[in-house]
Amino acid sequence: MDKEFIKQGLELIKKADAAYLTTIDKNGFPSTRAMLNLKNSKKFPKLVDFMSRFDDDLTLFFTTNTSSVKVSQIINNSKVSVYYCDPESWHGFMCQGEIEVVSDKSVKHSLWLDEWEMYYPGGKDSEDYAILKLKPGYVKSYYQFNQSDLEL
Amino acid sequence: MDKEFIKQGLELIKKADAAYLTTIDKNGFPSTRAMLNLKNSKKFPKLVDFMSRFDDDLTLFFTTNTSSVKVSQIINNSKVSVYYCDPESWHGFMCQGEIEVVSDKSVKHSLWLDEWEMYYPGGKDSEDYAILKLKPGYVKSYYQFNQSDLEL
Repeated sequence: MDKEFIKQGLELIKKADAAYLTTIDKNGFPSTRAMLNLKNSKKFPKLVDFMSRFDDDLTLFFTTNTSSVKVSQIINNSKVSVYYCDPESWHGFMCQGEIEVVSDKSVKHSLWLDEWEMYYPGGKDSEDYAILKLKPGYVKSYYQFNQSDLEL
Repeated sequence: MDKEFIKQGLELIKKADAAYLTTIDKNGFPSTRAMLNLKNSKKFPKLVDFMSRFDDDLTLFFTTNTSSVKVSQIINNSKVSVYYCDPESWHGFMCQGEIEVVSDKSVKHSLWLDEWEMYYPGGKDSEDYAILKLKPGYVKSYYQFNQSDLEL
């Protein structure tokens, strides 16, 4: 993981405005949407300690509603990609792998912020508050004309 | 196509910095990368006339290298999504469908810009200059807390 393009990718992840998560829907089409980028240290300073424990293997976490379409798609097919991009410098970084729905309460509590109440009125023990965890098996970097990739 | 969320989606497409194209790779994983957003009227003023002919059915065109990984993925599986996003306003718009590699020379010439030479040194008749065309069969809009979708 000491490759330069991965270090640059991790820096991008920590700055990117959003994470673009793509699941595969029931008809076999990719389906993409923006997610809160919990590794963005400016937007989520309270999560930096927790998230940085997973910098070494690039494990990503996302919060979402258990009742969302994406969760049902993931239960049906766990293969996903997450893409981060800075369009100005034309730098992109993709993480690919099988994502899981985390039921561990300690993780759910560690990622809880009071501002999540607007999404999950029931709070951090709400059944509709779900965590997705992706430990990527493959990453690919795009930096202007250069592409680099690695199986992890 | 007179639905408000589609009009807003088209406005977003015309302003978005990049288009995020997701193909499905040989292992069945989604694979995402940024593409030049040829419908961005500020970035590509010379293409506005051509691209706006397809505003009604949201048909999208992309330029790429015939030799690229994405083209081989598309030949194997044509199901894709293209996502546009303004992370600041939390507005996203996804177009989904089966994408095709266009061989029609008149289309290739219509989309040619001299600045493409850096990607396709052989010019507009280069075999490595490819056009992808997506007429979406399904669109989905995300605007803060609201989601809307439509089969086209």
